[in-house]
Amino acid sequence: MKLLEEKILKDGKLPGGGILKVDNFLNHQMDIELFCQMGQEFARLFAHKNVTKILTVEASGIGVACIAAQYFGNVPVVFAKKSEAKNLDADVYSTVVHSFTKDKDFTVRVSKNYISPDDKILIIDDFLAVGEASLGLIDICRQAGAEVSGVGICIEKGFQGGGQRIRDLGIELHSLAIVNFTDDGSKIEFVKES
Amino acid sequence: MKLLEEKILKDGKLPGGGILKVDNFLNHQMDIELFCQMGQEFARLFAHKNVTKILTVEASGIGVACIAAQYFGNVPVVFAKKSEAKNLDADVYSTVVHSFTKDKDFTVRVSKNYISPDDKILIIDDFLAVGEASLGLIDICRQAGAEVSGVGICIEKGFQGGGQRIRDLGIELHSLAIVNFTDDGSKIEFVKES
Repeated sequence: MKLLEEKILKDGKLPGGGILKVDNFLNHQMDIELFCQMGQEFARLFAHKNVTKILTVEASGIGVACIAAQYFGNVPVVFAKKSEAKNLDADVYSTVVHSFTKDKDFTVRVSKNYISPDDKILIIDDFLAVGEASLGLIDICRQAGAEVSGVGICIEKGFQGGGQRIRDLGIELHSLAIVNFTDDGSKIEFVKES
Repeated sequence: MKLLEEKILKDGKLPGGGILKVDNFLNHQMDIELFCQMGQEFARLFAHKNVTKILTVEASGIGVACIAAQYFGNVPVVFAKKSEAKNLDADVYSTVVHSFTKDKDFTVRVSKNYISPDDKILIIDDFLAVGEASLGLIDICRQAGAEVSGVGICIEKGFQGGGQRIRDLGIELHSLAIVNFTDDGSKIEFVKES
């Protein structure tokens, strides 16, 4: 998506270590105009899927998932919770996800009330790297017997293998921007979806 | 706001212990149609404030803050982060907030890049009880020298004092529903904003 690629080039930062920092428009400060454009693009890409619900994981996927839902006829959005909260149903689907950014395992949970075998679920997240979070959400959908209609990602880091892991499951994945680093790590380049 | 009050009566649950559970439309599964209505209502209530940015805290405030931002001319939304993340700027405003739900203190942080003295900040959150989270966000705005235009809350628990603490600071607070429990705790009743 050209608008997102331009935004990454203009405002993304490369502090080194394979990190692309986009916290001024995606995952700390959020550019709502851009989110609306991304939401419309997800709706276009997954229009044929008759999505009944959007699933994401706290925290930074929630904004784009909610904005996108408007373009899917205001389907409900469910966000998986990362920490055990007193007021979460005891009866949950859960899965363990490893965060390489934070270097620890955490459990993500979704109440069994909010995913059913009738649902056609679109998973949306802001970032895809190794794919742990998305694969965890796919696991939760499968526990519920729900259909995974697809996975929609804002920025995929093409060199970290998460995209391939999802496509290998036969799941339709669309990333609005796929970035690779140049060999010396000083620049990024964009890859077209295959 | 009548629509929200009706939704609370229809879908809210009272498991006891002063808890109002609204995770099927507000803070786990999110009703996007309702969020749009709430966003429009916040825009109406704070129309005179020339808001330049919306500030919330992860995770459950993010959805309604993003949807609402669309009705404020797509102002950016910033969410305060609760945990120390590798990819957050070292240079942050931070404050300590006590969570009574989780019975622990946590630090919330906002990068200094994303709040400036020129900003007129509307704080939005899904719930207001004792007021710790909102007061923490107000503290962060003051550290930045930004104006706090107001606080917009979806559901205020009127009996827990948070609303009064914010109003006592001279800050304009609007809660779309203010709930109290009846003496035996078996029912809720709504309070009008004073």
